[in-house]
Amino acid sequence: MKNYDAIVIGGGPAGTAAAYGLKEQGKAVAIIESDLWGGTCPNRGCDPKKILMSAVEAKSKVKKLNGKGLESDPTIHWEELMAFKHSYTDTVPEGTKKGLIDTEIDTFEGQAEFADSHTIKVSDEELKAKQFLIATGQRPSVLPIDGQEYLQSSTDFLDLAHLPKRIAFLGAGYISFELAAIANAAGAETHIIHHNSQPLKGFDEELALELVKHLEEQGIVFHFNVGVKTLEALDPGYRLSADGFELETDMVLGATGRTPNIESLKLENAGVEYTKRGIVVDDHLRTNQAHIFACGDVLDKTQPKLTPVSGFEANYAVQAMVGIKEAIEYPLIPTIVFGDLKLARIGMSEKELAEHPEKYHSETTDLSSWFTFMRINEQEAKIKIVYDEADTIVALSCLSSLADELINYFYFVFEKKVSHQELSDYIFAYPTPASDLEYFI
Amino acid sequence: MKNYDAIVIGGGPAGTAAAYGLKEQGKAVAIIESDLWGGTCPNRGCDPKKILMSAVEAKSKVKKLNGKGLESDPTIHWEELMAFKHSYTDTVPEGTKKGLIDTEIDTFEGQAEFADSHTIKVSDEELKAKQFLIATGQRPSVLPIDGQEYLQSSTDFLDLAHLPKRIAFLGAGYISFELAAIANAAGAETHIIHHNSQPLKGFDEELALELVKHLEEQGIVFHFNVGVKTLEALDPGYRLSADGFELETDMVLGATGRTPNIESLKLENAGVEYTKRGIVVDDHLRTNQAHIFACGDVLDKTQPKLTPVSGFEANYAVQAMVGIKEAIEYPLIPTIVFGDLKLARIGMSEKELAEHPEKYHSETTDLSSWFTFMRINEQEAKIKIVYDEADTIVALSCLSSLADELINYFYFVFEKKVSHQELSDYIFAYPTPASDLEYFI
Repeated sequence: MKNYDAIVIGGGPAGTAAAYGLKEQGKAVAIIESDLWGGTCPNRGCDPKKILMSAVEAKSKVKKLNGKGLESDPTIHWEELMAFKHSYTDTVPEGTKKGLIDTEIDTFEGQAEFADSHTIKVSDEELKAKQFLIATGQRPSVLPIDGQEYLQSSTDFLDLAHLPKRIAFLGAGYISFELAAIANAAGAETHIIHHNSQPLKGFDEELALELVKHLEEQGIVFHFNVGVKTLEALDPGYRLSADGFELETDMVLGATGRTPNIESLKLENAGVEYTKRGIVVDDHLRTNQAHIFACGDVLDKTQPKLTPVSGFEANYAVQAMVGIKEAIEYPLIPTIVFGDLKLARIGMSEKELAEHPEKYHSETTDLSSWFTFMRINEQEAKIKIVYDEADTIVALSCLSSLADELINYFYFVFEKKVSHQELSDYIFAYPTPASDLEYFI
Repeated sequence: MKNYDAIVIGGGPAGTAAAYGLKEQGKAVAIIESDLWGGTCPNRGCDPKKILMSAVEAKSKVKKLNGKGLESDPTIHWEELMAFKHSYTDTVPEGTKKGLIDTEIDTFEGQAEFADSHTIKVSDEELKAKQFLIATGQRPSVLPIDGQEYLQSSTDFLDLAHLPKRIAFLGAGYISFELAAIANAAGAETHIIHHNSQPLKGFDEELALELVKHLEEQGIVFHFNVGVKTLEALDPGYRLSADGFELETDMVLGATGRTPNIESLKLENAGVEYTKRGIVVDDHLRTNQAHIFACGDVLDKTQPKLTPVSGFEANYAVQAMVGIKEAIEYPLIPTIVFGDLKLARIGMSEKELAEHPEKYHSETTDLSSWFTFMRINEQEAKIKIVYDEADTIVALSCLSSLADELINYFYFVFEKKVSHQELSDYIFAYPTPASDLEYFI
């Protein structure tokens, strides 16, 4: 039986960051992964998605200038694009594992199960440790409908050898929006089906509907207020059915939420508390078992389940495990829907804003005539700023192909409390989106 | 005869910003423009250049993904691109003038001449004022060679109705690089001829030479150490000659420096001191005449002659004219060469670094395998960081299609002294160039 100072369960961004951190603190560390080293983000999440998105962005950039000096209609070649993706993702698991081994972190492969609160079983081994960190993340939820066995997930989409002619996405969250934008740009007949009328929960409704409008113009078909009940296999393809609704398609992708990876851990054996939303921790990321911590997407928490958030938590968890007293304090957490047109937000959450609508007012500005957007012929660019009663900015949303860049500048502005006067005195590279900042706020 | 509190000479970015500022201070203000309201930047400088560059950037973005999932070779259509440019630039002079008039700033058109230190003649009018601000900018210098009458300038290039088959640029500064990148991408046979072997003075030499290599691969032909002596008109075209060098081309664009617009002002009548490099001011932007100030590109100064610098000076000049005591203190001033691949820098100048080479060491990192650059298949991305003896970063240069975005993030980092720990705790939109910042520095 092997004994460690700390065992990390989960070899994704959170788990590996924590393992390195614990090792740096001089701990004897083991890490366990049941699937792909590196976890969701680099293997089947953010990174492959953004590689596919590169083609969508470039295509869109050119198309906007058609008739404005650039002649062309680029075509996405799916198999080539997938090969490009594989040139990155194929190296992730081995590379991640090698990095851990080179740092003298012991790596184990298989499903981890708590035997008791200080013992883990993995494959045929028993491992003991003084402390544990659970960072097993989430997986796509499976919608409980008739024919749910035919549902595919974002994982399948990001690894599709060939693009089907027709794809239907269930759910209108950011995963559906992003993958649908890719499928549509690559030439698939693309549908998004949502059970209510509000897409992109967590994002500003006005700009979310603008994004829907844009994607409709690009060819995506949205079906709101449709609660899909059955999925039948045809030959070929599938039929989706709801009350008064039918759709035939070649692939049905369920993106209706994600489920924490906890069932297989036998948390009961360790006495660790959890809900269906994830593992319960205090403000030190400590579970009800004082020596067992958790971080990342597996948490039952209110913060967005995003890679950089889990990285932040991993770094904090390392400090908490070695005895830091201060509770975790999250910095600003921007959120974004990628695409040829991106929707990004920063500041007070939509939920918080909705709790006291009387306290806040907002202003939406069409940016299309601003030089930065005019020169790329972007008609859809908008910014929406939410103010409190003292006219202080409390949240900001941006719809633009440059929304990621802009929201990251605003990150600095808000986090470092850069004043309007300071911004107007700054001399950015000119003219660039940054050189407009003083006019935005 | 009209009397003002302040007369601003020059209706470009500096002059108009100052006029608005002085008006806000309650002054009776007049402004005089001898050519196009709005000045160089929006009419024949930064803005039209960047409109043309949009097509170059989009084309390059697509081309890099050829074979990686995006099939196409977009073609620039010059006449369409120029029409797109005109849709912006054609409105600038009238729009600028209207803005001034609407703010009750008196506008005068014509060449301003000092009659005495308190009197200006413009057209047939005489204007008097308590204070003056000279902001007349610069114009392209004309290289004194045989046949100099055939030389054209950046102004001509940015207004070319049709793109010639062959273009030669004299000078290898940023204006040549940017316009040559446009001409080359649009299909012209493009040459850059430079009198010595060092292009892009003021930028890091190593990365400048990398940029030369990239542009050569794109098709631009560089000729270093060629001191052009004569320019002859052929039918059609021109022949450039130097010792052991001859080149036939359809257009010769001189970009060998810029000359301050001072000769016509009759500064002697006002007793204002100047050199051939521009108007001499103290650290309050005051000339040797206590009531006459100057700002922007017309100054004899060491700061880069860039639009946002002149804007900063204009805002300061307004304060100085109403009596502020503090001397001008410039913030960081990043500089950039735009193109499909951009070269940007920030921090201590190359001149300062060269004065004490023993004090500084640097590290250059190839970024092509980093996710941000890998996903757009950018092979040329590099960053160079210069440190002093205490290993503090004193300058940073970046070569990338994203160099503008990166240098603007670094602007915040340096200006607000954001620590490595802070950067690593920040949660930017992910994954984006900003989310890599903690790994750069």
